[in-house]
Amino acid sequence: MKKAKIKNNYFKSQNVDVNMNDSKKLIYAGKAKDVYETEKEDEVIVTFRDDITAGDGDKKDNLKGKGECNSLISSKLFEVLEEKDIKTQYIKLIENGSMLSKKLDMLPLEVIARNIATGSLLKKFPFKENQKLDPPIIQMDYKNDEYHDPMLNDEITKALGLATQEELDEIKEITLKINEVLSKFLKEKEILLVDFKLEFGKDSQGNIVLGDEISPDTCRYWDIHTLKTLDKDSFRQSQDNVMDIYKQVCNMIVDENDLKKWNINN
Amino acid sequence: MKKAKIKNNYFKSQNVDVNMNDSKKLIYAGKAKDVYETEKEDEVIVTFRDDITAGDGDKKDNLKGKGECNSLISSKLFEVLEEKDIKTQYIKLIENGSMLSKKLDMLPLEVIARNIATGSLLKKFPFKENQKLDPPIIQMDYKNDEYHDPMLNDEITKALGLATQEELDEIKEITLKINEVLSKFLKEKEILLVDFKLEFGKDSQGNIVLGDEISPDTCRYWDIHTLKTLDKDSFRQSQDNVMDIYKQVCNMIVDENDLKKWNINN
Repeated sequence: MKKAKIKNNYFKSQNVDVNMNDSKKLIYAGKAKDVYETEKEDEVIVTFRDDITAGDGDKKDNLKGKGECNSLISSKLFEVLEEKDIKTQYIKLIENGSMLSKKLDMLPLEVIARNIATGSLLKKFPFKENQKLDPPIIQMDYKNDEYHDPMLNDEITKALGLATQEELDEIKEITLKINEVLSKFLKEKEILLVDFKLEFGKDSQGNIVLGDEISPDTCRYWDIHTLKTLDKDSFRQSQDNVMDIYKQVCNMIVDENDLKKWNINN
Repeated sequence: MKKAKIKNNYFKSQNVDVNMNDSKKLIYAGKAKDVYETEKEDEVIVTFRDDITAGDGDKKDNLKGKGECNSLISSKLFEVLEEKDIKTQYIKLIENGSMLSKKLDMLPLEVIARNIATGSLLKKFPFKENQKLDPPIIQMDYKNDEYHDPMLNDEITKALGLATQEELDEIKEITLKINEVLSKFLKEKEILLVDFKLEFGKDSQGNIVLGDEISPDTCRYWDIHTLKTLDKDSFRQSQDNVMDIYKQVCNMIVDENDLKKWNINN
């Protein structure tokens, strides 16, 4: 498959089949995404913004094209997961930057899976840098700005009423499956999936469904040959080519057939 | 049962049937206890010192009589647990301040059980102060000064090689049973068991066995009527009657029959 060369002119809004007019009500504004209502009660539009933050919100910037880039990467990876029967919020990419999605009742959990020890894990625990973690470590943090997203254990999660043991077991099982599927897919694209953060919600039938995004903002991707950072660590480290890296990852993951299918012109 | 009045003259060493001479080799010195070898390879002597620390070691003092007081309380509570078929390191109190114990290969875990939300839990998570936790929360911290005893989850514990899942499950089950037995016993003594920290080890047969101590240094005890602090929180709060409180707890828990049995003169 010939890789798509993502040019700058991709990164502008191109309405396709959903009318994103100003009358749409904003339901939720996160650090890098907005969620809008649609005419259907159980569907929302997730719009990826260009904002980027790190260090518990201390470091902030706005990178032109990042939102559109992340929308393409996330859409592709959600499609890869759906093909393997993993339930996600994704319905379709409706324009570059915006995903039509199932409306979920989100669980306030950041579910982190780690294949290699790096980042904050090394500050908290005596793992060796770049130590392989097999089986992968799953960690759940409480998504709570006031308390700075503290790490949970199952007992505390249940005592806070955030999830039941059955839900926690299901989330861990799905996360391990997602790790397998994405690691394999990304390896084919010459990307090493080092670690990633997922967020889950419940759909109108009460099913646990993957929400949020899967992008360089929420994953650690390394070049499989050079181990070079291909993710938000480039921003954390104040590199000057962050958007080049995000576009490179988009080119590695998204191919021309995807763009055609999504009606995004090359 | 008439309560024992623990007088100051209890709190001096009274050799009974083990010769604690200087030739005994110190195997381990903790923050408030020393462990010495004995002639038997699988037995040690645990000596309770008068040192007291809090706040990750920032706050320190030496309280005359505290070690002996804690040795009596711990011995009594270990005996209460042994009666309910819970395996502990305790063999016998050999003198006021020193316990003959099984030698254990200690696991570097601080196993914390909480029946009421207070202390550090409130700083990290949005529980209501004094909120009842039923079922109790079990939390495991990694006993590691360099990393400031970080909270673990099962996956991280296993990845660090600290314990297997089977060991973790067994430790949690034993901890819940200990909580039941101690809560019931202490309630009869008009003490509310708020939370406590346990440490486990493995004996020479590989059994998981309760080690360390169970004392006002390692538990939160509240007066069941007034909810007044009867533990190390009095030291954390810089109260001027810390030793009075420890002796009061000793009087509430240890009775005259215990002292007779241990050959400790009233």
